[in-house]
Amino acid sequence: MNIDLCLVGIGTGNPDHVTRQGVQALNAADLILVPRKGAGKADLAELRLQLCGALVTNPATQVVGFDMPVRDADDPDYPAAVHRWHDAIAEVWLATIRTHLPAGGRVALLVWGDPSLYDSTLRIAERLAVQLPLKVSVVPGITALQALTAAHAIALNDINAPVTITTGRQLRDHGWPPSADTVAVMLDGACAFQHLVPEGITIWWGAYLGMPQQLCIAGPLAEVGERIQAERQAARAAHGWIMDTYLMRRG
Amino acid sequence: MNIDLCLVGIGTGNPDHVTRQGVQALNAADLILVPRKGAGKADLAELRLQLCGALVTNPATQVVGFDMPVRDADDPDYPAAVHRWHDAIAEVWLATIRTHLPAGGRVALLVWGDPSLYDSTLRIAERLAVQLPLKVSVVPGITALQALTAAHAIALNDINAPVTITTGRQLRDHGWPPSADTVAVMLDGACAFQHLVPEGITIWWGAYLGMPQQLCIAGPLAEVGERIQAERQAARAAHGWIMDTYLMRRG
Repeated sequence: MNIDLCLVGIGTGNPDHVTRQGVQALNAADLILVPRKGAGKADLAELRLQLCGALVTNPATQVVGFDMPVRDADDPDYPAAVHRWHDAIAEVWLATIRTHLPAGGRVALLVWGDPSLYDSTLRIAERLAVQLPLKVSVVPGITALQALTAAHAIALNDINAPVTITTGRQLRDHGWPPSADTVAVMLDGACAFQHLVPEGITIWWGAYLGMPQQLCIAGPLAEVGERIQAERQAARAAHGWIMDTYLMRRG
Repeated sequence: MNIDLCLVGIGTGNPDHVTRQGVQALNAADLILVPRKGAGKADLAELRLQLCGALVTNPATQVVGFDMPVRDADDPDYPAAVHRWHDAIAEVWLATIRTHLPAGGRVALLVWGDPSLYDSTLRIAERLAVQLPLKVSVVPGITALQALTAAHAIALNDINAPVTITTGRQLRDHGWPPSADTVAVMLDGACAFQHLVPEGITIWWGAYLGMPQQLCIAGPLAEVGERIQAERQAARAAHGWIMDTYLMRRG
């Protein structure tokens, strides 16, 4: 059983974020795997299915859901918990592919944003490659950072200046990274910016970027930080899920 | 004269990098401005025109070239030279728009990669906004970094780890940035990686990403650094232009 696995970056949920290459890759697939993450994130599986509905015109392409294993959020060893979680996901992929594509073929996976940025699909694919002949290709997609800067019509970087992309966890534990006056923060479920001394920092925040429910707030962190926290909490309660990101510049 | 200016990220030259939103924006434009950068970079103006040819189906959309002013490369004050250059470009945009769209309307500009990342189109647009009623919107596009990581099928970041994006000039002048073990380098016309102590560093390099002439080299910097320099020089000579970028990880 040979598998051609294509990881298709789909942007932040708007079908119009998908590139022509992405549309072609989805329609070239024999099987598209769609993760189901349980009731709390039901909207996201639903969004992926809507996206397939909007983009997949090949009647031979099967779209199949699978139940995502859950990461042990209580494990204090975060990297180890992530590794075990990835092992479990690889097992579910393999079982689902064996069931629906027993003779092998082309499999596509929709990846939120871009497969390269704070996404683990490539790492999970490496586990699969140990178990069967696997060829992996990647179709790049619009990341949340690009959707954020587009929504605010701002540049990510100052002229010739560096930018550091980091996670909420890193920002909370290590503060502002030393080598850049611009910091983009992803994977932040707890508004880590609240641990910074806000003076001199400007923030551009966005949630549900590119979607009808898009929210954007920008301004001095000292003035808008609390409003971002409040709007984030309210929006998450209203929609049942939230995806957001932000950019900060100091000086 | 009201102008709706849409900056459309087009990726790294392959028309299939363009998103559905990008295709829609180009076809909604009354006027698409295409910069001509002189004989040495003729391929790039030609590529932009080919891209319009592949994507623009609206017969009412005018595609008009304009001659790009040249930045004073000898000015030792780099930021000041860039500012004057941007002023000059804004003047040419304005003159071209006034000639071809005297009553105002929708103008689109094709931006290599994404308008947010080491691109100055947004800064030039700010200058235009001083001179006429202007509404700016941005359509995000695939950046060279995403095309690079897709071509190598690698992730940009390690799990929960930061990434610093910087320029060749910064890397040459300041060395490896202190806050990240992964560094992505853009705008490097002179292989700044050669100024690093190469031991312990892995590099993933790519040129003409997503195009038929794509080149990719990856490996320990100590082993492949010189080969990258040689292939880069040869490819630039053969094609008359080159666009390349690279990612490095240490440890």
